[in-house]
Amino acid sequence: MRMYDLIEKKKMGEALTTEEIYHIVNGYTHDEIPDYQMSALLMAIYFKGMDVRERYDLTMAMRDSGDILDLSSIDGVKIDKHSTGGVGDKVTLVLGPIIASIGVPVAKMSGRGLGHTGGTIDKLEAFPGFNGALSEEQFISQVNNIKIAVTGQSKNLAPADKKLYALRDVTATVDEISLITGSIMSKKLAAGTDAIVLDVTVGDGAFMKTKESALELAKSMVDIGKRANKKIAAVLTNMDEPLGFAVGNNLEVIEAINALKGNGPEDLMEVVYELGSQMIVFSEIETDKKKARALMEEAVANGKAFEKFLEFIEMQGGDASYARDINKFAPAKYVIPVEAECDGYVHALKAETFGLASMSLGGGRETFEDVIDMSVGIILNKKVGDQVKKGEAIAYVHANDEAKAKHAIEMIKSATEVSSEKCDHMKLIIDIVE
Amino acid sequence: MRMYDLIEKKKMGEALTTEEIYHIVNGYTHDEIPDYQMSALLMAIYFKGMDVRERYDLTMAMRDSGDILDLSSIDGVKIDKHSTGGVGDKVTLVLGPIIASIGVPVAKMSGRGLGHTGGTIDKLEAFPGFNGALSEEQFISQVNNIKIAVTGQSKNLAPADKKLYALRDVTATVDEISLITGSIMSKKLAAGTDAIVLDVTVGDGAFMKTKESALELAKSMVDIGKRANKKIAAVLTNMDEPLGFAVGNNLEVIEAINALKGNGPEDLMEVVYELGSQMIVFSEIETDKKKARALMEEAVANGKAFEKFLEFIEMQGGDASYARDINKFAPAKYVIPVEAECDGYVHALKAETFGLASMSLGGGRETFEDVIDMSVGIILNKKVGDQVKKGEAIAYVHANDEAKAKHAIEMIKSATEVSSEKCDHMKLIIDIVE
Repeated sequence: MRMYDLIEKKKMGEALTTEEIYHIVNGYTHDEIPDYQMSALLMAIYFKGMDVRERYDLTMAMRDSGDILDLSSIDGVKIDKHSTGGVGDKVTLVLGPIIASIGVPVAKMSGRGLGHTGGTIDKLEAFPGFNGALSEEQFISQVNNIKIAVTGQSKNLAPADKKLYALRDVTATVDEISLITGSIMSKKLAAGTDAIVLDVTVGDGAFMKTKESALELAKSMVDIGKRANKKIAAVLTNMDEPLGFAVGNNLEVIEAINALKGNGPEDLMEVVYELGSQMIVFSEIETDKKKARALMEEAVANGKAFEKFLEFIEMQGGDASYARDINKFAPAKYVIPVEAECDGYVHALKAETFGLASMSLGGGRETFEDVIDMSVGIILNKKVGDQVKKGEAIAYVHANDEAKAKHAIEMIKSATEVSSEKCDHMKLIIDIVE
Repeated sequence: MRMYDLIEKKKMGEALTTEEIYHIVNGYTHDEIPDYQMSALLMAIYFKGMDVRERYDLTMAMRDSGDILDLSSIDGVKIDKHSTGGVGDKVTLVLGPIIASIGVPVAKMSGRGLGHTGGTIDKLEAFPGFNGALSEEQFISQVNNIKIAVTGQSKNLAPADKKLYALRDVTATVDEISLITGSIMSKKLAAGTDAIVLDVTVGDGAFMKTKESALELAKSMVDIGKRANKKIAAVLTNMDEPLGFAVGNNLEVIEAINALKGNGPEDLMEVVYELGSQMIVFSEIETDKKKARALMEEAVANGKAFEKFLEFIEMQGGDASYARDINKFAPAKYVIPVEAECDGYVHALKAETFGLASMSLGGGRETFEDVIDMSVGIILNKKVGDQVKKGEAIAYVHANDEAKAKHAIEMIKSATEVSSEKCDHMKLIIDIVE
């Protein structure tokens, strides 16, 4: 089997066989196929795509390139949740403790990642002492004991994806549906859960900018999950404006704490409840989604969700007193309002620019060497659809550097649209693929 | 300028600017752009193409990546001839001496190359002592003295093409019209002649299998030549069956000698006269193509063309007695007929398979380290359109190894079609692009 012939075959629009796809993925992972042939194939795939059977083979070959977690010693139906990413996305921090408090086992592997803010593990380290590197035994026994554990990726999951993604990232071949499907689903399948709930974000601050492309990706991933005998569903959620009010590490943690205490932003809670009720149904604790949602609302109202959060933080060595008293989090040096320049209604708060503004304040990582400034970020004072008066704050920039604050304010202004016409609030749940 | 953005731009079908194309070609030539990004771009070009302005920029950037020959000290209009390659193609050996004897300066750089037989230089080395490595001074003074010199490439012409071609060859990106145009024309423009006549072969034994694709390539190359202010024309010639009767190094040299003596195969002479008359018109020695052809026929008939050949071989140190007495060429050990299996008319002698059969006998190079066996090859006894009787020879295999001969005979049989229906001889000149 020659890689040359496989490139030619895909270039001509033919489907690659299962054997050919394994040959490619294994050969590339083990440095037997050079980057320059792989990138030519990736570009051919960009133009010719892969059918569902090829996508499944790609996903399985990538899954099989490394370890596959064995979670069988955890009781109950294990469920993973994955988001394709957004701005102000603190869903896991809120969702995890709520459903764990209801009895759904939450065994979450999480990365640090690059982006507008840190990953979930970075945010949890806002609690002094928090240990985000559990051993496999600690991880499993904690889930069995308190139903929730979050740890950084310790095992070698889907190394093929790591190598392929690095190549796609420098050859303009990231945005192809089969490759995205293979990348996400190989890691989800290697993570060893019984069910998967996907949050596929759509809009300005998401990877998928249109409903059509997000729906295509959602369907593709759900197809592959089903072929792999997983319970799986995807929820398309709006990411045209940031989710909730907070963008930035500590600011998002504080918003999550408030949400667990019953004071969450409406849009954030809508996403949390939709994803969570789907997860509860998969767990078989409740078969009706509406009733599942009621269980969640009850767990928040009666304080059990927040208690579970405190227990979880403490169990992993974190100082939970920060959650009880959010004033313990170190604030940023400057808090500067971004004022509306006219009266009217907010029509747009372009999420991607808000994310980049937070990053420019020091809140994210461009390379893995970057150190995150936990205290900086943005707090929205208005959401799309809100009325605003000239001079009123649209948002507050939390900064530790005046020049960076000034730059972030300019960015936020450029990303904000106010006009005299009335405007609806954004609809959060766009579609559901099951 | 980031290569990533240029890949993305071409992927989206946009035209690259002149500056961008030079950045890519220079960066790649100087190892500043990695292979894996270049191959992704090549595949994007395969799918999205390049417009004429981009092709021109690509060609010029590749030409400018190395030396450009200065032939200004040669008198008259300097003309290059290039073939896109075929089986049994000994056109240069016949054409060069004929037009040189008429006064057209033939300053020919020729490669060794890989393929079914050796290159022109390899074939000329059939004459013991022939020196195919002239200095620039020798080369120019010989053309001024006797109007013809043929030498291997000494200068560093279009190194960008060398590097790019090696990458295209392993990433299935050879067969794209802009890239082929850039590759051929960059070398032709670096060779410094005033005019270029292209022999674009079409059919089974050619790179371009259909008239449409060959015409597209011919037009593309003629366009670029004109933009570069060269006199240029392309002749589309048939390569469905081998050209002439001989395939193999010494066998082709002998056929060329016979042709120069007035005993050339009709199809070979048709191509020689068509290309040559175009070259004579470009040289301004004669303005009418028919009259130019008559000059050539006369030079063959009165022996001047053959005399020029002898003079040329001797001037470059070769033993021309081999041309006077072709029995001096060492024959192959075995000459075995390939017999027709039924009565009828020859419908096909698939050129590519004949080429591969000659190569399998040892007549060509797969890698630059391979040593060519000069004596082996195939002599056709029939051409497409000829009547044949069962048991009559279709061709003769000239071999030095019985097992190889057997294999070649099988190949030739598989490439030969005989049927009872009458069939025309092939039309050699398919189209002309000026």
